[in-house]
Amino acid sequence: MDGRRNTALLLSYLGTAYSGWQRQKNAMTVQQRLEEAIEKTCEARVSLSGCGRTDAGVHARVYVANAVLPTGIPTDRLPFALNARLPEDIVVSRALYVPDGFDSRFSCKSKAYTYHIDNQRVRDPFHTGRAYFYSRPLDIEAMRAGARHFVGEQDFAAVMSRGSPVKSTVREIYSCEIMGGAGRVAIRVSANGFLYNMVRAISGTLVYVGIGKLRPDEVRSALLSGDRERAGPTLPPDGLYLTDLHYGVEEIDAWTGSQE
Amino acid sequence: MDGRRNTALLLSYLGTAYSGWQRQKNAMTVQQRLEEAIEKTCEARVSLSGCGRTDAGVHARVYVANAVLPTGIPTDRLPFALNARLPEDIVVSRALYVPDGFDSRFSCKSKAYTYHIDNQRVRDPFHTGRAYFYSRPLDIEAMRAGARHFVGEQDFAAVMSRGSPVKSTVREIYSCEIMGGAGRVAIRVSANGFLYNMVRAISGTLVYVGIGKLRPDEVRSALLSGDRERAGPTLPPDGLYLTDLHYGVEEIDAWTGSQE
Repeated sequence: MDGRRNTALLLSYLGTAYSGWQRQKNAMTVQQRLEEAIEKTCEARVSLSGCGRTDAGVHARVYVANAVLPTGIPTDRLPFALNARLPEDIVVSRALYVPDGFDSRFSCKSKAYTYHIDNQRVRDPFHTGRAYFYSRPLDIEAMRAGARHFVGEQDFAAVMSRGSPVKSTVREIYSCEIMGGAGRVAIRVSANGFLYNMVRAISGTLVYVGIGKLRPDEVRSALLSGDRERAGPTLPPDGLYLTDLHYGVEEIDAWTGSQE
Repeated sequence: MDGRRNTALLLSYLGTAYSGWQRQKNAMTVQQRLEEAIEKTCEARVSLSGCGRTDAGVHARVYVANAVLPTGIPTDRLPFALNARLPEDIVVSRALYVPDGFDSRFSCKSKAYTYHIDNQRVRDPFHTGRAYFYSRPLDIEAMRAGARHFVGEQDFAAVMSRGSPVKSTVREIYSCEIMGGAGRVAIRVSANGFLYNMVRAISGTLVYVGIGKLRPDEVRSALLSGDRERAGPTLPPDGLYLTDLHYGVEEIDAWTGSQE
């Protein structure tokens, strides 16, 4: 039966060449590339719903998008058919029918981003565009002490870049972990939602804590002040990866959980 | 004293943007970039000796080059001074004075290359240009059985591309190991020297063994025949990394040993 069904796609992408997920008039985005591939493959013009806007240059180890698509190509073949039309930096790994009410953005219960820092004396050429190079030694324990202050339901205005208007700057961070070792430091932030540039500003703030430019407890006072100037800098997009998505839908969560 | 001394540089590079190490008239190479950085940094025009030509697109986790350089910049500062003039895909990590007779090419006793295969159903966008994507399942044990036939002092004409003339096609392979797991397969070949495209042809031959297109013992008969047509294909450069260099000079070997 050649009907139409709400279809979720799991993808991953290297964000370097794109101005983020969301379609834009004068810049190439992941959404546009994927919608073009769907148009050629499924002969359907659709507007995908994506699990989040990612900023220009940000990567996704996991990403979920959905739209009502023709069922002509079975879901087990659809990823291969789409990949044949997609550039090498965007890959669809699964397709799945989901209930009509499922929406990649609004059904998403929590997400995590991981920020990777190449923390060595000299740059690793293989990490270019894929991690942030920072050569000053970072005090991991101080960063962990600072990270604790980000956890909880709070106003995150101090770590949001101005840009897209938002109704509220309150979000709940479930965890903020620092993983370190062998010249790499990773900051993983799990939350019910994120403000514009929030993880990059949290990471910049924790780097300031790691070099002693901010004390761990100054993270708390910076957050309470709501003043962007009191937190650390917004780090570049190269090191940022969308790594986890939770929908409370077993079939989806099985392939979108923790992809450090 | 501002003299001149024979200086070895340890570097690593992502080869994607380069036509290999060796200077060419109409293409950009790693040697040219590094000599240009040395000219600006040390105010000396030199011709570097490199540990090997690497083919276009091939990467180096480790690479050693040397030349007689002015001693004005101390060796502990020289890498930082050069990196400031180098693109992000080439990084000098150490500089070291070496005896006058040291030559990166002729003093090198053994080298190893590692060929990385992304062996999963769907491509990983983060491995693009950095591993060879091959989706058919590979029989690792058969590949190991085939790999054993490459070890020893033999004529490797069957796994050499025509191109640069060579006096002899005999080389000694010390080890040929297959490492597998989690959707990755790596083939590491250690030898006293390599012929043109030799590791990429060995890897293509072992992939043929891994899918049953050649029996493990047919590796031996292909080598004995000296016939390029009887071995497997030359795989693309994206997956190939120079990973080990041994000079029998402790100070150098300490930083050029096994960098999988």
